[in-house]
Amino acid sequence: MTSAVEEPTPRRRGRPGKDQETVLREAIELFNLQGYDATSMGDLAARLGFTKSALYHHVPSKEHLLQQALDEALDNLSEAVAAARADSSVTALERLRRAVRGSVDVLIEHLPAVTLLLRVRGNTPAEVAALKRRRELDAQLAQLVADAAAEGGIRTDIPADLISRLLFGMVNSLAEWVRPSGRTSPDTIADALTAIAFEGLLAPL
Amino acid sequence: MTSAVEEPTPRRRGRPGKDQETVLREAIELFNLQGYDATSMGDLAARLGFTKSALYHHVPSKEHLLQQALDEALDNLSEAVAAARADSSVTALERLRRAVRGSVDVLIEHLPAVTLLLRVRGNTPAEVAALKRRRELDAQLAQLVADAAAEGGIRTDIPADLISRLLFGMVNSLAEWVRPSGRTSPDTIADALTAIAFEGLLAPL
Repeated sequence: MTSAVEEPTPRRRGRPGKDQETVLREAIELFNLQGYDATSMGDLAARLGFTKSALYHHVPSKEHLLQQALDEALDNLSEAVAAARADSSVTALERLRRAVRGSVDVLIEHLPAVTLLLRVRGNTPAEVAALKRRRELDAQLAQLVADAAAEGGIRTDIPADLISRLLFGMVNSLAEWVRPSGRTSPDTIADALTAIAFEGLLAPL
Repeated sequence: MTSAVEEPTPRRRGRPGKDQETVLREAIELFNLQGYDATSMGDLAARLGFTKSALYHHVPSKEHLLQQALDEALDNLSEAVAAARADSSVTALERLRRAVRGSVDVLIEHLPAVTLLLRVRGNTPAEVAALKRRRELDAQLAQLVADAAAEGGIRTDIPADLISRLLFGMVNSLAEWVRPSGRTSPDTIADALTAIAFEGLLAPL
């Protein structure tokens, strides 16, 4: 709501309605657009229509914003993979299938944050920590592939770690072209990806 | 060859053995490492052990180096796709398979140049032109998928353009992890990718 009187608390300075969540969304957008290193707090303030000092009332630092964005991506991906791994009442193949599906869903729902995560190269402590969490997640996914192979659910003529890289490479490549407003629905994309990955492209005999 | 006498032509100034090809390789490496926009000719000269003026005897501009790198990637990818499309004596499915295989081979053989191409966002005329060529190539690949579907070679329950994006998304994702000195051979990677894409992961019945 627009108000003619001064806002009473420092945290609400800047334009009305632009809260911390908005700051984070705009920051992620800008980091993806021009790169984290190339983005200054001044750039972000300008984009938000804030003064730099008003921006610092919302967030302590640029790295804090990066940390929040990477946590958003990693927390949601970890949760999806953990949920898939937890159900021991289904086959390992089904757990793998759910992990693929869950990863696609998170990628599309949290597209800007996951895109940022996928571009991280490890130049700051937040990035180094994120890369470490990403490697742990990759190891869990590779284990799901290995379990499905050991169980006889998926082919064993290709090493599990190579399957895992190719499979989740296809998942991650969605970040290059999926748009939240695109004409293909998230479900259609997730269905197509899992169908191709598990059944292959060849026409049924 | 190292020589104690002054080089007679301006093009050979700088350290001996560092020719234009070396300059291009180091430039691509640096562009991939720190981003094209963030890389200056001064950075490149420092990396090569050149003075900046010696570097300008080898290459006219930073954008010229970018152009050469993008041409290397696009010329080789175009050639591989054209070769796959040209053979009308085989099925459309086989042409598609060869296009996938050929793209993987080019990606691995020209990994730094293709990696640079895949990161291009269109900030300079060279990048805009490269994006245009990339879209033309993507259209040709989508057509190969559509032909294979029309012929009954691949499944028709997923739109051809979605298949094409997912399939070549998996191919392009190789740039994220393949290393020329890695323990998995290019052939193993290409075989695994085409097997998964066409046959799928499920264990044979």
